[in-house]
Amino acid sequence: MTEKGLLIVLSGPSGVGKGTVRQAIFSKGKREFIYSISATTRQSRPGEVDGVDYFFKTRESFEKMIEAEELLEYTQYVGNYYGTPIDYVKKTLESGKDVFLEIEVRGAMQVKERMPEGVFIFLTPPNMDELEARIINRGTDASPIIRQRMEKAIEEIDLMRYYDYAVENDTVENAVNKILAIIQSEHLKVSRLLESKISNEEE
Amino acid sequence: MTEKGLLIVLSGPSGVGKGTVRQAIFSKGKREFIYSISATTRQSRPGEVDGVDYFFKTRESFEKMIEAEELLEYTQYVGNYYGTPIDYVKKTLESGKDVFLEIEVRGAMQVKERMPEGVFIFLTPPNMDELEARIINRGTDASPIIRQRMEKAIEEIDLMRYYDYAVENDTVENAVNKILAIIQSEHLKVSRLLESKISNEEE
Repeated sequence: MTEKGLLIVLSGPSGVGKGTVRQAIFSKGKREFIYSISATTRQSRPGEVDGVDYFFKTRESFEKMIEAEELLEYTQYVGNYYGTPIDYVKKTLESGKDVFLEIEVRGAMQVKERMPEGVFIFLTPPNMDELEARIINRGTDASPIIRQRMEKAIEEIDLMRYYDYAVENDTVENAVNKILAIIQSEHLKVSRLLESKISNEEE
Repeated sequence: MTEKGLLIVLSGPSGVGKGTVRQAIFSKGKREFIYSISATTRQSRPGEVDGVDYFFKTRESFEKMIEAEELLEYTQYVGNYYGTPIDYVKKTLESGKDVFLEIEVRGAMQVKERMPEGVFIFLTPPNMDELEARIINRGTDASPIIRQRMEKAIEEIDLMRYYDYAVENDTVENAVNKILAIIQSEHLKVSRLLESKISNEEE
């Protein structure tokens, strides 16, 4: 039986080290993941290839994709759109390959609405308890910028409860091993095995 | 925060190799598990210690435990009772240690009714597809004994859907690694982390 791939969504507060952990997972290369290619309206840089690094789009065609609900999530950053084409993700999953998304918390919440069957992993800072203590005592002698950052951290950490798993980024190696264990165990879920069995029998 | 331990239930059809896999997990010793001690009415053998190998009970006191619902599961085998005292399991979990139960499928279903929050792992034979094919073609030229065994196998494999995970016992090493990944990832579940947080704050 061909099992459908898993959609793995790695997210967490800004600056927690999502990119480093994702790169380490890919370079370890024990398991084959497809890294989701984003669509963007920004100019391609020298060496970047359309369909490999990004799907490069005009502002007009990107906005058409938004209207047609062809994006799993999207955001604007420094005047440009960035988003995940849902079609590419779905086709990869159907082919039995896992899709890996590394994404900001707001984007992850958009994905959760569209594809709740994904595996949502929240990467936390190494010292959550300490951070919480700092957050609780916030505002007494902090500058406006620090207060603002803390407000954002509170908002982001509050979203953790919508995730399936929380992984502490104490060391990159530990975080990577935990994430690989999560993915391995998700593949062993009876609910997923039976689902793929039923859909194979219907074919 | 002290997290509650996990109740891990390893089960599967007769003869699949549950005991060998369980022993390999314990001898690997990477993670501390408490192996649940059973109560029994059978005579203790030389060298067996009450409260270490078994809780040895009279028939009368075992039947009182059944009536008082003090057993997570129980069965009769060759004229003796065997069962899992619920009190011992609950106390160990409260202390933050994982409890490991290796058990027949019927017993596992009893545990599922009493403690559905457990992690239920179904160990399957290495060649499930082959076994299924044999089961489908059953009865054409098989002897009554083989037919009877196959009926039992069908019944037991049908119960797989009540489990959380299915692990193929292709090699003991593979099965052990998968089970350890499942346990690691179950400890990372946000639902469990938040639950232990709430109960700690209430203390």
